[in-house]
Amino acid sequence: MARSKPKVRIVPLGGLGEIGKNMTVIEIGRDAIIIDAGIMFPANDMHGVDYIIPDFRYLLERNDLRLHGIVFTHGHEDHIGAVAHVIEAFPNLPMYATPLTAGLVEVKLRDAGLMQNAKLNVFKSGDVLKVGPFTLESFHMTHSIPDCAGFAIHTPYGLIVFTGDYKFDNTPIDGKRPDYAKLAEFSGRGVVMLMGDSTNADKPGWTPSEVVIEAGFDRVFRRATGRIFVATFASLISRVQLVANAAKQHNRKLAIAGYSMTRNVEMARKLGILDIPDDMLVDLGKISSIPPHELVIMATGSQGEPSAVMARMAYGKHRLLDVQKGDTIILSSHPIPGNEEMVSRNINRLLQRGADVIYDPLEDVHVSGHGRREEMRLMINLVRPKNVMPCHGELRHLHLHGKLAVETGVPPENVFVVENGQVVEIDKYGVRLAERVPGGYVFVDGSGVGDIGRIVIRDREILARDGFLLVAVNVSRETNQIIGQPEIISRGFVYLRDSDELLEQVKYTIEDVINNTNSSNGRRREKLQDSLSRLLYNETKRRPMVFSVLNEI
Amino acid sequence: MARSKPKVRIVPLGGLGEIGKNMTVIEIGRDAIIIDAGIMFPANDMHGVDYIIPDFRYLLERNDLRLHGIVFTHGHEDHIGAVAHVIEAFPNLPMYATPLTAGLVEVKLRDAGLMQNAKLNVFKSGDVLKVGPFTLESFHMTHSIPDCAGFAIHTPYGLIVFTGDYKFDNTPIDGKRPDYAKLAEFSGRGVVMLMGDSTNADKPGWTPSEVVIEAGFDRVFRRATGRIFVATFASLISRVQLVANAAKQHNRKLAIAGYSMTRNVEMARKLGILDIPDDMLVDLGKISSIPPHELVIMATGSQGEPSAVMARMAYGKHRLLDVQKGDTIILSSHPIPGNEEMVSRNINRLLQRGADVIYDPLEDVHVSGHGRREEMRLMINLVRPKNVMPCHGELRHLHLHGKLAVETGVPPENVFVVENGQVVEIDKYGVRLAERVPGGYVFVDGSGVGDIGRIVIRDREILARDGFLLVAVNVSRETNQIIGQPEIISRGFVYLRDSDELLEQVKYTIEDVINNTNSSNGRRREKLQDSLSRLLYNETKRRPMVFSVLNEI
Repeated sequence: MARSKPKVRIVPLGGLGEIGKNMTVIEIGRDAIIIDAGIMFPANDMHGVDYIIPDFRYLLERNDLRLHGIVFTHGHEDHIGAVAHVIEAFPNLPMYATPLTAGLVEVKLRDAGLMQNAKLNVFKSGDVLKVGPFTLESFHMTHSIPDCAGFAIHTPYGLIVFTGDYKFDNTPIDGKRPDYAKLAEFSGRGVVMLMGDSTNADKPGWTPSEVVIEAGFDRVFRRATGRIFVATFASLISRVQLVANAAKQHNRKLAIAGYSMTRNVEMARKLGILDIPDDMLVDLGKISSIPPHELVIMATGSQGEPSAVMARMAYGKHRLLDVQKGDTIILSSHPIPGNEEMVSRNINRLLQRGADVIYDPLEDVHVSGHGRREEMRLMINLVRPKNVMPCHGELRHLHLHGKLAVETGVPPENVFVVENGQVVEIDKYGVRLAERVPGGYVFVDGSGVGDIGRIVIRDREILARDGFLLVAVNVSRETNQIIGQPEIISRGFVYLRDSDELLEQVKYTIEDVINNTNSSNGRRREKLQDSLSRLLYNETKRRPMVFSVLNEI
Repeated sequence: MARSKPKVRIVPLGGLGEIGKNMTVIEIGRDAIIIDAGIMFPANDMHGVDYIIPDFRYLLERNDLRLHGIVFTHGHEDHIGAVAHVIEAFPNLPMYATPLTAGLVEVKLRDAGLMQNAKLNVFKSGDVLKVGPFTLESFHMTHSIPDCAGFAIHTPYGLIVFTGDYKFDNTPIDGKRPDYAKLAEFSGRGVVMLMGDSTNADKPGWTPSEVVIEAGFDRVFRRATGRIFVATFASLISRVQLVANAAKQHNRKLAIAGYSMTRNVEMARKLGILDIPDDMLVDLGKISSIPPHELVIMATGSQGEPSAVMARMAYGKHRLLDVQKGDTIILSSHPIPGNEEMVSRNINRLLQRGADVIYDPLEDVHVSGHGRREEMRLMINLVRPKNVMPCHGELRHLHLHGKLAVETGVPPENVFVVENGQVVEIDKYGVRLAERVPGGYVFVDGSGVGDIGRIVIRDREILARDGFLLVAVNVSRETNQIIGQPEIISRGFVYLRDSDELLEQVKYTIEDVINNTNSSNGRRREKLQDSLSRLLYNETKRRPMVFSVLNEI
């Protein structure tokens, strides 16, 4: 009797229904690999959270799984940012990445002190990877960073094609075009599932090539009479090349500001991926010796992040860089959803300090790295998948990608729009939804990973909205009456020094409740807090947290 | 000897360098009027603030000014929302507004219990207003609400043309076209200053007419098989008319959800500005009797505001409305900067509940009410101002509008890009910057107006990020040693129940500091707080606020 073929399972732990923290597990029977391990930036109401990593409890709990490795599609934070967390949990796990991605992963692991025993394997896109019993055919894709790979994973039921982030850029900066031939060839061999980028599913048409920025930069460089700053993401390596090219064209030197961008540029130059001549680069500490019109400075902080170079310049807090009259500042990125406010504020501040600030749509200084609707259609028509599982994007993007797949000929019942944690199973009978596993957020705050959850965040929300008030009272054990003056501590509620009347009412309420309540300390405390909350709400229409310390002496 | 002509002063108290809370004072000698009194929505980091009103201390402090009235350009919140605050401060101030604007102002004053003695005067755009010694020629403008007016204010040095919010809509929903003739005529009489809308100064070309939405709605209505919801701003009266028209076309009844929208629609219908037949309107409580495909529901909450109808539906918390499979929800607005995250979250939630959600750019269901760059150029060429002062917009928009004015022929030295509080003076020698007056934010939080300032907001920010920890300790007056167990209260920092080890370290630190410090209570308290802060930072890399109560007994 023939052994039955093992089940294939797709376990999405991140990236579905959100922008960021991409992580997917692919299982064949009891063998498994991970694709990507990214972070996500917190929403505005996730107070105090530094970043978010995928919840990979599922992997920790499935002791029966043989985990063979982690493969990376490309080197952006939302795909590699959580690598140190994963390697901490699975110290011997082999990693597979293209040269630039491997370089950027190495930077992360080195910072976390985990590089020494790391099993980091480098492949070239186009290579066939053997990861344990898995066979992955990698293929080159274009995006906003060089060296991107997608994977066709062999399974008993056909290929799973995992695109990674992509757009079809026919004139990429590094000249390496998308591997159409391979994608088309997969279609002939049978693709059981296409897992495709959905980020721009609400945008019609095609995303422009990176080269349109070349012309945009050229126009800005031509006009600029002083220094030029270009702000973008630290890992947008293609953009660095474009800026270097423009600098060469216009006889300007190039300086890099910002720790992560400096390290990434070093790494990419070492690997020969970035082509910047030695004599063009200048140290940030030495830029004052160069005439303004002969200088370009690339910097981080295009998202308005308070700790990055651009924001520090905007607020006059950078050690080496200040805004000078005549500076031209190019923001070569779009705000990530949720960052719009910080970005606008930064632009306004930079203008206030006398700079000229150029951003899209004022000039073509940024294009998205993700394909739009026509590119998604092209992908489906190249690959001809039996089933489609939209990946990478908010829920609305997944839905729209799903609808688009149906319009492009995929039967509705073969489209799997699911959220993180929803397992999808493939066997000889077809594809179906299986169980749900944890797929939520793990908050990283300071040195804590996952130690703050909903309760702490909810408390922070309440404190942020209305602050707190605490009263400490000494009560006589004998007479049951207050001794001395209560101590009152409050922050974030009202400015107490200007609130004499309210303070008097608070004191009166304390006396009233303590001196007139004959019950247990606990009960009395509760009653005091209730009375104070009511008083504060009536007087201010605010609901601060109220605490009391009753000290029986 | 001829009396010398009085100075003219423009005192911007709001709307410059920000989106919202528009308020401008115009003075001729000692006589003054106010144009508009709007509110602004708080930024994401203005924790707990409900809304922001202009700081009009200047007016309260200038006892020598004769304030003659307040004139309104149109009925949006950012132009009339603070009217009750102004009338509370100046109870007898006459108000001047077009019929719809007056109706919307009346709703506000009634809610604030201030309508009884209100001196609300209604004019029609085109009328010449006499406000004390001021003469204002009003002119009709198009925007996203009917009944918009601009003003040409007579001064000894020529006209000040104040556009208000506008776009040049040649096919407005209500058929009332912009008053080009009047604008052109002003140019012949001499315009000393143009104060123009800058909102879309970073957008090339022209803003489409409101009618493009008509076609967009028609396509969506044609496809929809179930109920249709249209979410927009409560005061976007033109949009309500468009929806009513589409409803009529497609034989659907119309229900209105949301307190403020319901009141605004009532008011606009009473004034004959909204044309909705009685038998088309249904009560929200009775919609269950109407087949889904015969119903449209207009609702508030297109900005994702948690308390509005759409967000309550998205979270399954609306008393009467739930999302049903087959519902089509149109978001007929763009997110206000800073709201993008809430809006996306809402869209995703609504999709999750089974609705189809339509938003721009998926379909033409919204256009801006503000003119783009070509319209700004047209305005300048119609009016031919000697000087230009860009209004309404963030600093970047004001800058761009200023540059555009220069490109359109206004000498650079005649362009006044200023921020709130910067007084601009006009006399026979020309125009120049004068002193600065307060022009910042007044926060409204609960029932408090202006009682929370930077300090409280900064405390809320710290509490939001890392929470607080408070320890209460009894210390013996005799032995100087701790009595009993310290009490520890903490919120928003870590989840204490899961932090036994940290708690032990906190207790140890308390004992160590108290039992080994021989100094004043105040000094000891300081030392304890310092030690605890250091401990908590070392252990968690977080910086909660730390408080202590030392009780000597």
